[in-house]
Amino acid sequence: MSKSLTKSILSGDRRSLAHLLTQVENGSPEGLAALDEIFPFTGKAHLIGVTGAPGTGKSSLVNQIALQYRRPTIGIPKRVAIVAVDPSSPFTGGAVLGDRVRMRDLAGDPGVFIRSMASRGSLGGLAQATAAMVQVFDAAGYDVIMIETVGAGQTEVDIARLAHTTLVVEAPGLGDEIQAIKAGILEIADIIVVNKADLPGVENTERALKGMLDLAHPLEKVFRHHGQAMAIPAGEPENASLWVPPILLTIAADGTDVGELIKAIEQHAQHLHQSGDWDRRARARLVSEFEALLTETLVAQFRSSIPDVRYNEVVDRLAQHTLSPWEAVKMLLG
Amino acid sequence: MSKSLTKSILSGDRRSLAHLLTQVENGSPEGLAALDEIFPFTGKAHLIGVTGAPGTGKSSLVNQIALQYRRPTIGIPKRVAIVAVDPSSPFTGGAVLGDRVRMRDLAGDPGVFIRSMASRGSLGGLAQATAAMVQVFDAAGYDVIMIETVGAGQTEVDIARLAHTTLVVEAPGLGDEIQAIKAGILEIADIIVVNKADLPGVENTERALKGMLDLAHPLEKVFRHHGQAMAIPAGEPENASLWVPPILLTIAADGTDVGELIKAIEQHAQHLHQSGDWDRRARARLVSEFEALLTETLVAQFRSSIPDVRYNEVVDRLAQHTLSPWEAVKMLLG
Repeated sequence: MSKSLTKSILSGDRRSLAHLLTQVENGSPEGLAALDEIFPFTGKAHLIGVTGAPGTGKSSLVNQIALQYRRPTIGIPKRVAIVAVDPSSPFTGGAVLGDRVRMRDLAGDPGVFIRSMASRGSLGGLAQATAAMVQVFDAAGYDVIMIETVGAGQTEVDIARLAHTTLVVEAPGLGDEIQAIKAGILEIADIIVVNKADLPGVENTERALKGMLDLAHPLEKVFRHHGQAMAIPAGEPENASLWVPPILLTIAADGTDVGELIKAIEQHAQHLHQSGDWDRRARARLVSEFEALLTETLVAQFRSSIPDVRYNEVVDRLAQHTLSPWEAVKMLLG
Repeated sequence: MSKSLTKSILSGDRRSLAHLLTQVENGSPEGLAALDEIFPFTGKAHLIGVTGAPGTGKSSLVNQIALQYRRPTIGIPKRVAIVAVDPSSPFTGGAVLGDRVRMRDLAGDPGVFIRSMASRGSLGGLAQATAAMVQVFDAAGYDVIMIETVGAGQTEVDIARLAHTTLVVEAPGLGDEIQAIKAGILEIADIIVVNKADLPGVENTERALKGMLDLAHPLEKVFRHHGQAMAIPAGEPENASLWVPPILLTIAADGTDVGELIKAIEQHAQHLHQSGDWDRRARARLVSEFEALLTETLVAQFRSSIPDVRYNEVVDRLAQHTLSPWEAVKMLLG
């Protein structure tokens, strides 16, 4: 059953793909088994993370990038998948992405697959589910997979860790007061896009971003921008990964300079391959996925080895302040 | 050695307190041992989280609240500790809190202790370190402990989980574009403060916040605002915890209506006691601290039981895509 599903996915059947994506999103046994089977066929796609605040025109930009990958001026069209992740609170309930209107030019194109995913359960779980969806698209032969997120929180940072290339999208007219918060999200940027570049104030925005980047990228900090310093093998030259994020201006509404953006994305991919970062990042990503699974499994195994009565007794003593958290751990383990 | 340190802390010695806070922040063995010893003396303080974007006048507000707790119009003065946490990126490097000027009225008051803490290591680690600092102040007999954070990310949410009462501070003049992000942070608010209420636009800000709150607090969602629904024992009446966050206007610069804010804080504490939420939240907090420690310890124990050669072999096969993450877990565990 699952074997034939895997075969259909690898042969490019859209209906099977949609079915598997749902199974994977729901974490069903069928979905999990299929993930093991497709795993050897993953690792080829270019994963592009796109993040930025609502109002920056991020969705239109993603559409335009997809369109240009489908209709390149040189070379052959690439197959493009878009995973739109909405980690917003239950309040906004996915409305930010829910009301998106996808371009008519993309509709019906068999080389494009768009999938929305709303927050469910823990935020960590959302990043995990996104990683699994990306693996499915990767195995199904999509060349470019764009992961679009809203906002600037921990979820975006976690999801950016999945991507080879992360675009942070800004727009003119941001207040000074949020600059301090913005600085955090800039850390994960490989390319910064000031979209809506026809709006007044674009020069100010560009200047402010440039100032923050200059602060952020003195030479000795090159490895920090993906937070994956741990992935660098000892003895590797530290500046192998030197990449200073360019700032590009675009107008997604009419496609202005989206071609330039694609060039920058391709240059970044080339840089990753040449520096060895492509493989290093892929390895770090797999190791962190593996370690999260290992931790989950260890905890579940341990918990099932302790009778509920015993566990609750320890928790009660904790709540009564007669046992500190650390003493409680030692009591259960020893 | 540690026993006498604990004794000094409990007797209110400021120098010992400062010493222990440093040990705890650094995670030294002395600090960790002392945490076990002081644990039975914790659980009395009222923990107040204060969060909001830079530019809202949050620090001045915290100072004013402290001042009014020290010089109450009725009742006796309370001892106040302030933990200022700066989870900002290495870019901004703590400057947001670093340049704060504390009020002269608080300086030299033996009933007030102010401690700043900058981000170091992982964000999760910062919340853990903050929890430990709070326990020290709690054992040392501080009645009110304010935890002040900058921003609106996951760290703020994690730190808010520590608090009994969470204030979210806003100010007039926020752009519409960031409302969607703001909505997330409102979820953790027990009390919303619009500070700088003498600025133009205060009515708009109040109205926008009211609109978001109305969306956020239909009756059936009462438990959501602290994300601790798991802490509610089965069979507990679901509306035991009904509290709709009030919106208060203040001007911290001259203390206008900070007295009203204190009243709301005290009402919230009373509500927590009457509804049983005070104990439920305390229990949930301790359990989650305990479970984080347990997980950490289980992983460390397991890892030390596996020879490096074996572990690296599995990781290599993972990187070569000949073993899926889940297969790798099964191989190591089985």
